[in-house]
Amino acid sequence: MISFENDYTTGAHPQVLKMLLETNLEAVSGYGSDSYCSSAREKISKACECPEADVYFLIGGTQTNAVVISTLLKSYEGVITAATGHINIHEAGAIEYTGHKVLELPHHNGKIASNELEEYLQRFYADETHEHMVFPGMVYLSHPTEYGTLYAKEELESISAICKKYQILLFLDGARLGYGLASLSTDVTLPDLAKICDVFYIGGTKVGALFGEAVVFTKKNAPSYFITMVKQHGALLAKGRLLGVQFDALFTEELYWKIGRHAIDMAEQLKGMLKEKGYLMPWDSPTNQQYIVLENDQMEKMKSKVKFSFWEKYDETHTIVRFVTSWSTTQDDIDQLKKIL
Amino acid sequence: MISFENDYTTGAHPQVLKMLLETNLEAVSGYGSDSYCSSAREKISKACECPEADVYFLIGGTQTNAVVISTLLKSYEGVITAATGHINIHEAGAIEYTGHKVLELPHHNGKIASNELEEYLQRFYADETHEHMVFPGMVYLSHPTEYGTLYAKEELESISAICKKYQILLFLDGARLGYGLASLSTDVTLPDLAKICDVFYIGGTKVGALFGEAVVFTKKNAPSYFITMVKQHGALLAKGRLLGVQFDALFTEELYWKIGRHAIDMAEQLKGMLKEKGYLMPWDSPTNQQYIVLENDQMEKMKSKVKFSFWEKYDETHTIVRFVTSWSTTQDDIDQLKKIL
Amino acid sequence: MISFENDYTTGAHPQVLKMLLETNLEAVSGYGSDSYCSSAREKISKACECPEADVYFLIGGTQTNAVVISTLLKSYEGVITAATGHINIHEAGAIEYTGHKVLELPHHNGKIASNELEEYLQRFYADETHEHMVFPGMVYLSHPTEYGTLYAKEELESISAICKKYQILLFLDGARLGYGLASLSTDVTLPDLAKICDVFYIGGTKVGALFGEAVVFTKKNAPSYFITMVKQHGALLAKGRLLGVQFDALFTEELYWKIGRHAIDMAEQLKGMLKEKGYLMPWDSPTNQQYIVLENDQMEKMKSKVKFSFWEKYDETHTIVRFVTSWSTTQDDIDQLKKIL
Amino acid sequence: MISFENDYTTGAHPQVLKMLLETNLEAVSGYGSDSYCSSAREKISKACECPEADVYFLIGGTQTNAVVISTLLKSYEGVITAATGHINIHEAGAIEYTGHKVLELPHHNGKIASNELEEYLQRFYADETHEHMVFPGMVYLSHPTEYGTLYAKEELESISAICKKYQILLFLDGARLGYGLASLSTDVTLPDLAKICDVFYIGGTKVGALFGEAVVFTKKNAPSYFITMVKQHGALLAKGRLLGVQFDALFTEELYWKIGRHAIDMAEQLKGMLKEKGYLMPWDSPTNQQYIVLENDQMEKMKSKVKFSFWEKYDETHTIVRFVTSWSTTQDDIDQLKKIL
Repeated sequence: MISFENDYTTGAHPQVLKMLLETNLEAVSGYGSDSYCSSAREKISKACECPEADVYFLIGGTQTNAVVISTLLKSYEGVITAATGHINIHEAGAIEYTGHKVLELPHHNGKIASNELEEYLQRFYADETHEHMVFPGMVYLSHPTEYGTLYAKEELESISAICKKYQILLFLDGARLGYGLASLSTDVTLPDLAKICDVFYIGGTKVGALFGEAVVFTKKNAPSYFITMVKQHGALLAKGRLLGVQFDALFTEELYWKIGRHAIDMAEQLKGMLKEKGYLMPWDSPTNQQYIVLENDQMEKMKSKVKFSFWEKYDETHTIVRFVTSWSTTQDDIDQLKKIL
Repeated sequence: MISFENDYTTGAHPQVLKMLLETNLEAVSGYGSDSYCSSAREKISKACECPEADVYFLIGGTQTNAVVISTLLKSYEGVITAATGHINIHEAGAIEYTGHKVLELPHHNGKIASNELEEYLQRFYADETHEHMVFPGMVYLSHPTEYGTLYAKEELESISAICKKYQILLFLDGARLGYGLASLSTDVTLPDLAKICDVFYIGGTKVGALFGEAVVFTKKNAPSYFITMVKQHGALLAKGRLLGVQFDALFTEELYWKIGRHAIDMAEQLKGMLKEKGYLMPWDSPTNQQYIVLENDQMEKMKSKVKFSFWEKYDETHTIVRFVTSWSTTQDDIDQLKKIL
Repeated sequence: MISFENDYTTGAHPQVLKMLLETNLEAVSGYGSDSYCSSAREKISKACECPEADVYFLIGGTQTNAVVISTLLKSYEGVITAATGHINIHEAGAIEYTGHKVLELPHHNGKIASNELEEYLQRFYADETHEHMVFPGMVYLSHPTEYGTLYAKEELESISAICKKYQILLFLDGARLGYGLASLSTDVTLPDLAKICDVFYIGGTKVGALFGEAVVFTKKNAPSYFITMVKQHGALLAKGRLLGVQFDALFTEELYWKIGRHAIDMAEQLKGMLKEKGYLMPWDSPTNQQYIVLENDQMEKMKSKVKFSFWEKYDETHTIVRFVTSWSTTQDDIDQLKKIL
Repeated sequence: MISFENDYTTGAHPQVLKMLLETNLEAVSGYGSDSYCSSAREKISKACECPEADVYFLIGGTQTNAVVISTLLKSYEGVITAATGHINIHEAGAIEYTGHKVLELPHHNGKIASNELEEYLQRFYADETHEHMVFPGMVYLSHPTEYGTLYAKEELESISAICKKYQILLFLDGARLGYGLASLSTDVTLPDLAKICDVFYIGGTKVGALFGEAVVFTKKNAPSYFITMVKQHGALLAKGRLLGVQFDALFTEELYWKIGRHAIDMAEQLKGMLKEKGYLMPWDSPTNQQYIVLENDQMEKMKSKVKFSFWEKYDETHTIVRFVTSWSTTQDDIDQLKKIL
């Protein structure tokens, strides 16, 4: 059965696998100290046009969020997020497990609004009792968001300016960044992110790697003894080479962008098709996740022919569902889906 | 200057102090193993009409919330609260510091609505991805709430029934319980709470003691080695006698109720006065905390004559402020305030 | 029955109680922002001859250790202690509960040896794998130790020099400090401690107060937003005045020293008596805790006449027991004990 | 340069890689719910002769130790280990980060002695103050140990009997288990471990996989909602298939044992060679890690020809170094080393 269930249902892009195979028998040192990690770091730093970038490799998204947030926040600080942020909903409380509160802002199709952020911060410092409250220490954005939406460059710059004004950090979760950078309607580039954010990560797990997220500290602000704290979180991969090799492959000959563009091409076809067929789209997504409203009966029937994922109830008789493309979606998958629709 | 700032601005009720003095030179064993603690436990258990009650004494409210919640929840569980709950706002993230997420429900003048609780729980278990989310493990209520409001017995029973249905615990923060029990419009008694809640506490700090909160586990459900965990939280008082003596005094000859009734009497006079003078009350409070809306200019002037506390902005030119009575509020305080108003 | 069981079996010194009584009805602001706290801070700072001291009041010893250690250590650091240190044995894992490892050194009657400390640190940094290990971030000393012993000024200076060399903090637990300062054989003064340590505390609980420990940060090194973190640990007393009043009393007319001298006077009589009677003392203690070896039969008999505490097995037929004096030990207690012995 | 530095310097065994390649494009569900994980679980359960085994896959050793220990211990419990245990030294405090104390026993070439364990437990419960101490909740063993040594079946059974007597859990870290099972001098089998331990893991990272550890709960004692807690620790791999596929390959046609036997064969040749050349072996290791004492000068010279690892100082002029074989050590490596020695 064809699957549009998620962007982590298949293994790795063939180029990535190839490089893993070719380097398999070479004996290298552990924990990220090998030459593949160095090479990948350099390529990423170059792609970010950020020579002072410190790049570290972690294994998965929830892990990366927990490690980055907990090692950058002070003990009395929490992290601000859209209510729909991954860290607030789908990480089993991994942030709170490290002792930090997640501070919710309302979401607008997955995004926070800069004016609401500013109001929140103003109100916090105006409150005479704020020393009894959790200090906001960081803003967490996902880009693309959990709704497939993207921040415009101007929005990011505005959020960044507020963060600077209140001396808090800006962290961007790029678990699906490749699909954001390749979107037809984005004006945000990797160098933009390196300029705007204090720290962000470039997702590998959902964009062609077996696993892996590349964390980029952009302002010479990586915590001291970060590796020790990564180890303390149980997040240090013994064979760090596996992360180095995969990101080296992804950042060779623009593979990361090619993967992004392919998935977006597939998503645009999908979106066109869904629109043409008259499906209601509850909001517009310019990335690889596409959402439609289905009548519950219709949904049940469709389930037997194609895999997609439940998003949320729309009303008593309708449901919002999600179709996702990735590097491994084929034209054939799209054509088969067309027949089904 | 007279003060209606809070209910913890003065020391202890004279009866409580007297007993501390009388027992001062007696050498007793530490950590709550003395005869005063035993006696206090017995009196509380009797007042709760709950012979199987396990009673423990802790020092303050935030500490009690953190210790009770973290020792009763499983690692993968969080605690549900009204958005305005003390644990969600004014405890500097003490719950999250123990590794648990605080799960917000909307508040209605400080209270949660049982139908919204049920919807939340239904939605949680209906969500196919809920194993990636924080499990609701407990409901936290404050009674009186941070808005001075009270749950009706029927509301508590309805919340309790939902908790039982979903097998989660019901915990009631009674930091100001004395003022709730003495309210003219409550139908909730101490034995009711012992029946309805899995665990609750009887506040001493704000109701006549120097400090101290009596935690009552009502269903033979005190965690094993609770004392060890209290110690681990840095919350075990070496001279546990101080807690025993104070609660013994508070539960001798109904002192706890007398204190409550006195403060409510003062609050009712205050409320009558405020209404008479035509002050806008943004919601009705039947307990010792009374809220009014003041024009900002008016507020500034009043500040020089009486202490009260800022609650929140009402609009650009008005502010909600709070007046609080306690065991130590005197008729003279009320009379002076009358003149000021 | 007379009791030499511990130094926290009675309430507070009458002078301390008196001041609590006198100030009881005064309405003051909460959380340590009142004038009694200010006054006590000033007196302590003066007694320490350390005008730049930052003084904070906490409730008990385990709590103080956990709050100070966890707010000063970085996430990847642990605290070095003698194997017998209170934090390593009798705090139910309160330090580990905050996420930090306790790093053991061998003890010599409760004390660490500076050369062993230096070797430990040398070995740590020489180890190529030390980034996978817990970094030593602080040395914890108790003074008096759990064995009643004291560091000489020279020993403290030597330990301090090593700490500076390796850029780690020196923290001294003074839960029984009053009895150390008053020892006949000490050359360490309060101003010495303020010079030598980065942070230390002056114990109240065991030296005349109902409860309370005064933490002194001596090098303008109190953590930012310390109060917020104290709250987060559940350690912020609502009626902070109680701590201020008690330490104000203790630091008025040298009451803290008078209490110390009295207990030492009692302890010296006790020690003389024990020596005279030929009891084996397993090590020499110059403070208020005195240790002797008893035959098990003898111990059982004595138990029915006087309270003391079990320390540890000496051999199959003998036990080490401890006798403790305090501010509340009377000449009559000593005389009665003499008869018993 | 040939390398005997560690058993995680190369990638994965070709059979493991082959299966990853063959399954790469198949779309499967995430987080360990795929058919490869099911198949691997079944094969492992069969190999353990433990039909009631619950098998979970995690990524690395430190992570596995932290997740298993923290989810099985109660909040007031710690874990007993040999002083040399990996969790006590080389995990950057990952166990303490989860809030639990690591309780040290003396080591004997990396192993604990059952009589010392029993004494520890006896003394703990005999101590009247033990409710103020960290309760022992689990024994952690590594097998092979960090010294390459192995427990005899009788030793494990004796430790297990003590654990049962004191109702604490027995957990075995099998990061290098494959090399232990294949040792020429062991009498311990996989089914023995399933019988003796409450939980243990079968190491993949060091025994032929790219990464991965298979945790086996043997007594229907996997914690409820273990997956949720794994997620909370940031340890849940999105593409769980990668773990399933690798362990499926390792447990197909006894690959795991073949790998073990090969490394042991190489290690035995190495050991013979070292003995023959007269190198001092500070203790005897029957597994894939071999230790010798080198003069410091000699060590420096050898470093330019072969990679090995520093273990510890032997005396001022000598050092203990370690040579490690693995699945990827070749006869050619051994032959070259022979020439160098």
